Amino acid sequence: MSIAILCSGGDAPGMNPAIKRFVDYAYLKGDKPYFIYDGLEGLIDAQIKPATHKDVSGIMHKGGSIIGTSRSKRFFQKSYREKAYENLKSRGIDSLLVLGGDGSFRAMDVFSKEFDISFIGIPTTIDNDIALNDYCLGVDTALNVIRDATDKIRDTASTFRRGFVIEIMGRECGYLCAASAVACGAELCIIPEVDTDLSLAERILLEQIKNGRKYVLCFVAEGTAKTDYMVEWIEKKLNLETRKSVLGYIQRGGNPTVYDRLMAFEYVVRALNSLYSGKNINSVITYRNGEFFYHNIGEIVSSSYEISHRITDMLNYIG
Amino acid sequence: MSIAILCSGGDAPGMNPAIKRFVDYAYLKGDKPYFIYDGLEGLIDAQIKPATHKDVSGIMHKGGSIIGTSRSKRFFQKSYREKAYENLKSRGIDSLLVLGGDGSFRAMDVFSKEFDISFIGIPTTIDNDIALNDYCLGVDTALNVIRDATDKIRDTASTFRRGFVIEIMGRECGYLCAASAVACGAELCIIPEVDTDLSLAERILLEQIKNGRKYVLCFVAEGTAKTDYMVEWIEKKLNLETRKSVLGYIQRGGNPTVYDRLMAFEYVVRALNSLYSGKNINSVITYRNGEFFYHNIGEIVSSSYEISHRITDMLNYIG
Amino acid sequence: MSIAILCSGGDAPGMNPAIKRFVDYAYLKGDKPYFIYDGLEGLIDAQIKPATHKDVSGIMHKGGSIIGTSRSKRFFQKSYREKAYENLKSRGIDSLLVLGGDGSFRAMDVFSKEFDISFIGIPTTIDNDIALNDYCLGVDTALNVIRDATDKIRDTASTFRRGFVIEIMGRECGYLCAASAVACGAELCIIPEVDTDLSLAERILLEQIKNGRKYVLCFVAEGTAKTDYMVEWIEKKLNLETRKSVLGYIQRGGNPTVYDRLMAFEYVVRALNSLYSGKNINSVITYRNGEFFYHNIGEIVSSSYEISHRITDMLNYIG
Amino acid sequence: MSIAILCSGGDAPGMNPAIKRFVDYAYLKGDKPYFIYDGLEGLIDAQIKPATHKDVSGIMHKGGSIIGTSRSKRFFQKSYREKAYENLKSRGIDSLLVLGGDGSFRAMDVFSKEFDISFIGIPTTIDNDIALNDYCLGVDTALNVIRDATDKIRDTASTFRRGFVIEIMGRECGYLCAASAVACGAELCIIPEVDTDLSLAERILLEQIKNGRKYVLCFVAEGTAKTDYMVEWIEKKLNLETRKSVLGYIQRGGNPTVYDRLMAFEYVVRALNSLYSGKNINSVITYRNGEFFYHNIGEIVSSSYEISHRITDMLNYIG
Repeated sequence: MSIAILCSGGDAPGMNPAIKRFVDYAYLKGDKPYFIYDGLEGLIDAQIKPATHKDVSGIMHKGGSIIGTSRSKRFFQKSYREKAYENLKSRGIDSLLVLGGDGSFRAMDVFSKEFDISFIGIPTTIDNDIALNDYCLGVDTALNVIRDATDKIRDTASTFRRGFVIEIMGRECGYLCAASAVACGAELCIIPEVDTDLSLAERILLEQIKNGRKYVLCFVAEGTAKTDYMVEWIEKKLNLETRKSVLGYIQRGGNPTVYDRLMAFEYVVRALNSLYSGKNINSVITYRNGEFFYHNIGEIVSSSYEISHRITDMLNYIG
Repeated sequence: MSIAILCSGGDAPGMNPAIKRFVDYAYLKGDKPYFIYDGLEGLIDAQIKPATHKDVSGIMHKGGSIIGTSRSKRFFQKSYREKAYENLKSRGIDSLLVLGGDGSFRAMDVFSKEFDISFIGIPTTIDNDIALNDYCLGVDTALNVIRDATDKIRDTASTFRRGFVIEIMGRECGYLCAASAVACGAELCIIPEVDTDLSLAERILLEQIKNGRKYVLCFVAEGTAKTDYMVEWIEKKLNLETRKSVLGYIQRGGNPTVYDRLMAFEYVVRALNSLYSGKNINSVITYRNGEFFYHNIGEIVSSSYEISHRITDMLNYIG
Repeated sequence: MSIAILCSGGDAPGMNPAIKRFVDYAYLKGDKPYFIYDGLEGLIDAQIKPATHKDVSGIMHKGGSIIGTSRSKRFFQKSYREKAYENLKSRGIDSLLVLGGDGSFRAMDVFSKEFDISFIGIPTTIDNDIALNDYCLGVDTALNVIRDATDKIRDTASTFRRGFVIEIMGRECGYLCAASAVACGAELCIIPEVDTDLSLAERILLEQIKNGRKYVLCFVAEGTAKTDYMVEWIEKKLNLETRKSVLGYIQRGGNPTVYDRLMAFEYVVRALNSLYSGKNINSVITYRNGEFFYHNIGEIVSSSYEISHRITDMLNYIG
Repeated sequence: MSIAILCSGGDAPGMNPAIKRFVDYAYLKGDKPYFIYDGLEGLIDAQIKPATHKDVSGIMHKGGSIIGTSRSKRFFQKSYREKAYENLKSRGIDSLLVLGGDGSFRAMDVFSKEFDISFIGIPTTIDNDIALNDYCLGVDTALNVIRDATDKIRDTASTFRRGFVIEIMGRECGYLCAASAVACGAELCIIPEVDTDLSLAERILLEQIKNGRKYVLCFVAEGTAKTDYMVEWIEKKLNLETRKSVLGYIQRGGNPTVYDRLMAFEYVVRALNSLYSGKNINSVITYRNGEFFYHNIGEIVSSSYEISHRITDMLNYIG
């Protein structure tokens, strides 16, 4: 048997450590691993090459993905999936390790049912929005990049009397925003999952400003679309000149943290062991309360993602 | 009731976030919190002051501890513990939150049995060597500091044909060393808990060097006292000019990571809730598989620390 | 005589090292230094306190300014300047050390002519836009913050086929943008001082894309207001999906680099020596080709800032 | 004509940006550049390859040198230099760009006199010890790596009552140590070029300790061999428990700063322009007071390196 790895959807900082472990572990098992470049687009276009040790030397500390990734519309059409299958078959590849989010896993699920291809999915997205799962590769690095940027913004915020509104990525999910707000000591946090009592916040913060508070830091999840609203709110209700900062794409980059490197290691070894043994194939590996599980894509899609109460509980104590 | 916080033993990067949460949460609960400066030494010498919001403003990103810490020999003598008790009693303090390791918790256990003082201990040491516990505050930050230093050493190592031996802290415990070795892609890792098969390593590495490997990175836990031995071993067996780097005290410093900040938050809120409710007092909070537990010091001392198999399993695949 | 320090206008990462040197050197000379908090606003409102060693302990690595800064409209009115003068006189302060830009220096110039107050100005702004001067405090730190952010953006840019447009601060001045573009290896750089030949760039980049270039990085100075234009230009002319990233306020923060710390030291020692000796007072210290000079504000205002040809020369070779 | 680049001696963080500029600029000029791998050893052993744009893509942020470096004893023998010459001649290479220190430049000087080979040397060493020159590539990065490590050590130093002795690289030269001591706010600095008055320091520091100073930071240049002496001195004279930290090889690594990247750019463009025009060949480019000069190796060797008085002047004010 032969296994190929591919990335799909948005990139995340855990991808390169995972790719390195994939190559090292596959060779250790006597396998000859393959790379599929540029995601499902590259799978369709036969951008497939044998992976070597040299390819993955010195990549552990790099953000992004050395094999690229893509969002593919063509893969929704059966004709292109057939092409993809031919590309794999002609090279003797029968299994895929997929780093991505649930859209990618759904595509793989369809593909594996149509053709004789096994796959394992590893949740890899800074949005941390996969159901039945606590941790997606890349989240810890993104959180520390946000911390680092916020430390810098706080330098300038604390020098003036000012409000600062920081917009955080995460699509419909507020995890990245909430965890950052708690870790960075924000006064306000606006996420899709929680209905913040702004009139209470107003009362508390006005009191604090009267007692000497100089600046107010507010984190807003992009999914709420309330960034500009909160800028106005602080200016009007708290009477503070306010600036906004959209952190944007720096949140997707950065040297993977130790946590992301170790998690990449564990996810990949389990994924390959499944594919080699034929157990738990065509599923997604998840991580909950310190243990790894396998779920088929149906279970994941039919469950809805819930933000951890450990994070939302903490939000009650900020401000 | 009134609660004071103190640090004891070696410092660790999670201390300041924990101190900040202690102050914020105590005030939120209507309590008036206290600081004990310079650990048990300061407790004996009455270096005790009310804690204010201002004291903890802007400390989240600082390593070390703003209230200091110490190792106290005097506290082993009852006369000094009596003095310590008087210092607390005269200020109306009846509870202590202690950030430290098991030596500190044992001292607290004795103290709480002799006098009418409650305590909760939070495992805080980069050595990660508390039994029945997966995670001590400070470990994640230390791991990322080591990663960062290793990235720099690798720059120069890969420029020459060379061996590099990096000595890692952790006293008798190899956790920090093993996790770093895996995360940084070391070829060799020597820790107290595992008997590395050096003749196998020699065979594999000589083969790799023949095939083009230019440098060899070896992590050694200080507890093994084998740093110099491994320098010689690489020079002699692998015939590579070899340098050593003792990372030393930089491992104790650094801006606390998001993981350490969030764990500090959760540990402290649980500790204070215990002290306020009188439940689970005179114990140490531990964290295993994503859940928090309370153990009395007897359970912890009578158990022996075991390094997580999740880490040692990974060691089988490096090199 | 007694000297006070104040910051004025936008904050910059060299301010705290300068403040620390001011206090240390003034005490060394037997003087009793003062802080004026919150810039000219604080000067009007008598936010003036004796500066202590304790105030400046452990501030060298902090961005922003521990004494705050402001932009003051009131200071344009003579009545408020009279109030400012009374505040200084009543405390026996006769000299001011001012960290700021040329607007602040002009205000000081007026003030020193009306009242018996001496001042020295130190160019301090990440915009690097003071005439007759190569280097403003804060620039080196800002450049390295931008480098660090760009490294992260490049991670994700290189993972997709994409254009990336990064907007850089600097008001009307393109220095920060040009130096960053060269240092980060950008393909395109748009600044107010240079007329970029976009049709040449189009030809070269299309050729490179044909030969395998996957992504294009474009730096735009905020003063050109061409950020959105360049996003469209890349999408249309180079046929690459393109994202923009406005780095914003992170550029003003961050741990001051060694260069900024040493320059702060040298600027401040010279400034204090002038005030103590009465030589070259009521002027701005500038730095050109490795030497320090004194200019009265008239010379600076009547000269126009010119971006260093050393930087613009390098722009000819990027892309 | 054809030009090759090589690194020689210890590595320094400016090497990769210089290598990238070399390749980009040579192609821009229509030249076909070459790499010589592993320094003079590789020159002898014919490790010479055409350099491509792909080789230097994404290397700007890497410490070390992607083409390696070495210290060569064989090159002292004429027979090996003949071999080296043959290797160049057979490939049509007539010019060398050499990144290294004065030992390497002397070797080149001999080589260029014996054979028909031109060279230009660019001072590249974190030791900053080239005569007639203010700045060697790599120094700014090394200084900021030291600053970063010292920030971490200060975290733990300030938590205990302690002395800390930090040993800094630089061989016989104290520049790196002195600049770091000033920038990091050390109390003591021991370098080869200055005779520190320790009895004065003792008096001042004892006074400060009496007034509340908790810790003492001492920087020692490796060239003085006084690290252990200063540990004992602080323990005995200042009565503080003292730790030492030998920063070691992390000082050679790290993402090149903007300053090093820009200086690399300017050095390389000047070097190539010389080789292309035949002007100032067989010399070393130096940088003084903001300008570039050319010196033949004789001038440099017959001058002795002097540490900048700008740095040693600052030492008078620390402590």
